[in-house]
Amino acid sequence: MSAKQLQVRMARHPDRVLCADDFSVVEADMPTMAPGGLLAQQLYLSLDPYVRPMMDPVRSYVPHLNPGDLMPGFGVGRVLKSDSDALPVGSYVAGRFGWQEFASLDAAAVRRIDSGLGPVSTAVGVLGMPGATAHYGLTQLGKPQPGDTVVVSAASGAVGSLVGQIAKIKGCRVVGIAGGPEKCRYVIEELGFDACLDYRAPDLVERFIAATPDYVDVSFENVGGPIMDMVMGRLNAHARVVLCGAISQYNTASRSTGFEVFELVRQRASLTGFIISEHMDHWPGAFAEIAQWIKEGKVRYRESIAHGLRSAPEAFMGMLTGKNLGKQLVRVADENA
Amino acid sequence: MSAKQLQVRMARHPDRVLCADDFSVVEADMPTMAPGGLLAQQLYLSLDPYVRPMMDPVRSYVPHLNPGDLMPGFGVGRVLKSDSDALPVGSYVAGRFGWQEFASLDAAAVRRIDSGLGPVSTAVGVLGMPGATAHYGLTQLGKPQPGDTVVVSAASGAVGSLVGQIAKIKGCRVVGIAGGPEKCRYVIEELGFDACLDYRAPDLVERFIAATPDYVDVSFENVGGPIMDMVMGRLNAHARVVLCGAISQYNTASRSTGFEVFELVRQRASLTGFIISEHMDHWPGAFAEIAQWIKEGKVRYRESIAHGLRSAPEAFMGMLTGKNLGKQLVRVADENA
Repeated sequence: MSAKQLQVRMARHPDRVLCADDFSVVEADMPTMAPGGLLAQQLYLSLDPYVRPMMDPVRSYVPHLNPGDLMPGFGVGRVLKSDSDALPVGSYVAGRFGWQEFASLDAAAVRRIDSGLGPVSTAVGVLGMPGATAHYGLTQLGKPQPGDTVVVSAASGAVGSLVGQIAKIKGCRVVGIAGGPEKCRYVIEELGFDACLDYRAPDLVERFIAATPDYVDVSFENVGGPIMDMVMGRLNAHARVVLCGAISQYNTASRSTGFEVFELVRQRASLTGFIISEHMDHWPGAFAEIAQWIKEGKVRYRESIAHGLRSAPEAFMGMLTGKNLGKQLVRVADENA
Repeated sequence: MSAKQLQVRMARHPDRVLCADDFSVVEADMPTMAPGGLLAQQLYLSLDPYVRPMMDPVRSYVPHLNPGDLMPGFGVGRVLKSDSDALPVGSYVAGRFGWQEFASLDAAAVRRIDSGLGPVSTAVGVLGMPGATAHYGLTQLGKPQPGDTVVVSAASGAVGSLVGQIAKIKGCRVVGIAGGPEKCRYVIEELGFDACLDYRAPDLVERFIAATPDYVDVSFENVGGPIMDMVMGRLNAHARVVLCGAISQYNTASRSTGFEVFELVRQRASLTGFIISEHMDHWPGAFAEIAQWIKEGKVRYRESIAHGLRSAPEAFMGMLTGKNLGKQLVRVADENA
């Protein structure tokens, strides 16, 4: 017997704009459980922007992908076979499943999920990597003080939506930047930001100046490019710019920035890049706090769900061009099947 | 009786490249001593790059200069009249003299200089603002560890030359960048850097890559522009880029940067701007340490001296285009007169 499963692999390095031909959907052998490990079926695959730069053949914090490699990603799944007492068959786990239906996982590298606490999909969203990213980046690097003006780009996304809500909890004035009136409405009305600017508006700069009368103390940067440059020109003294991502740049050839670097001296400001996987000690405390805020109604989240592993490439490309609202997931298998 | 003195004022905001017509040399009334203050004759005026951006009408950490304003600057002088017991007539003081022959100074805002410890001119150089800048920026923001590769631009200047020598004391590999073979020879042979690259060399990038086989852990950035962009493309994991200045940009219209901002995420690196006047508590300890290093022969310095206050504009313009070696001073009056 040789059962098969579906996998999505990187077919080749993208030539700037990611396209369907950069992926291949293949039938592969079912993984076999390693001794002491576990075998799990993926229910929800998380699609996250950080995966795009991993497809480029450049020096980075992890080895870049090579053609033929399984696309990487966090996922939530159900344990089918287990050598670990702590993770019995039937339990839910979050971990690095990759873009495939079934995965052999290291018991030490997964988190067990209590499905009674809420939708298991949140374990790769607001209570997963994006949640930890928002919490760590804002609180540890952005260091928001009451009354600070905090600007968040990609404000309706998985990370940005949470950053802004935490900044509101911390007593800040929060200005989001998002693509289109629908997202901006969501960010203001449902997430409670003080303002949200449509970056496609022709008078964006004027609106941004009007929305930041006291300049910008914290910028949580998810997009890079001209939007970042605009924010960099309006920093307050001792501003902290938290560099989480630069999604507007991932599919472009020319990636240079346009801001004046000396502005960081004038304002005694800092720009700090980070990778949340280097701060695992921060995750449990962040999740406890976010879970409490969700319970108290102070934090809300949304999910955009694509169906079936074959839809992952299109959903991923869509997310990179801003088609999603909130956390982008792929439902790989039916939770209740 | 109405004695007169010379002053250099800003005649107008510069139009990109600074020129002689941006300054005016005027005869002004001698200053009168304020109660509790002192009147001092300037001996050495310090010319520092930070003054150039102050001439542009933009929002900054201090109000920008307006046409007709006295050009600002640190200086060393001798007390002529005093209401302060701590600063008697004949003593030497360092403070914000400005570009003029005599200044009325606040006793609380000057430092008394012990002329027996060495040339008084060092109080605006290696044992003055540039010295504090190099020491604070490197040790507090750059945080060099033994074995780190430290890159210093404007390596033969007042700040850069000291940064590199301190980094050597801290056990780092130090790579300087300077303009021309003469400066590079000085930086290697006299200051003891491991390497110094002439930024005018056509194969600069290849040389830079060869000189930084382990990438760059700390960059002390004084120049900005394409040289900074080159360094930003070669950061090591967790690199610290200390933004002290961007001298190559001060006289230009297009001040945008050319590096890829996401590289700061890939390398989990930071870029931090600072102004040394916000860290006055650091100065005494820094000077004690630097003075000790000078005594031990571990730190060397040089001065470029222009003669007479009227030469200040030309010397300042020359410094901005790299004509000086080490600390640029103007001898305003003869110390031994």
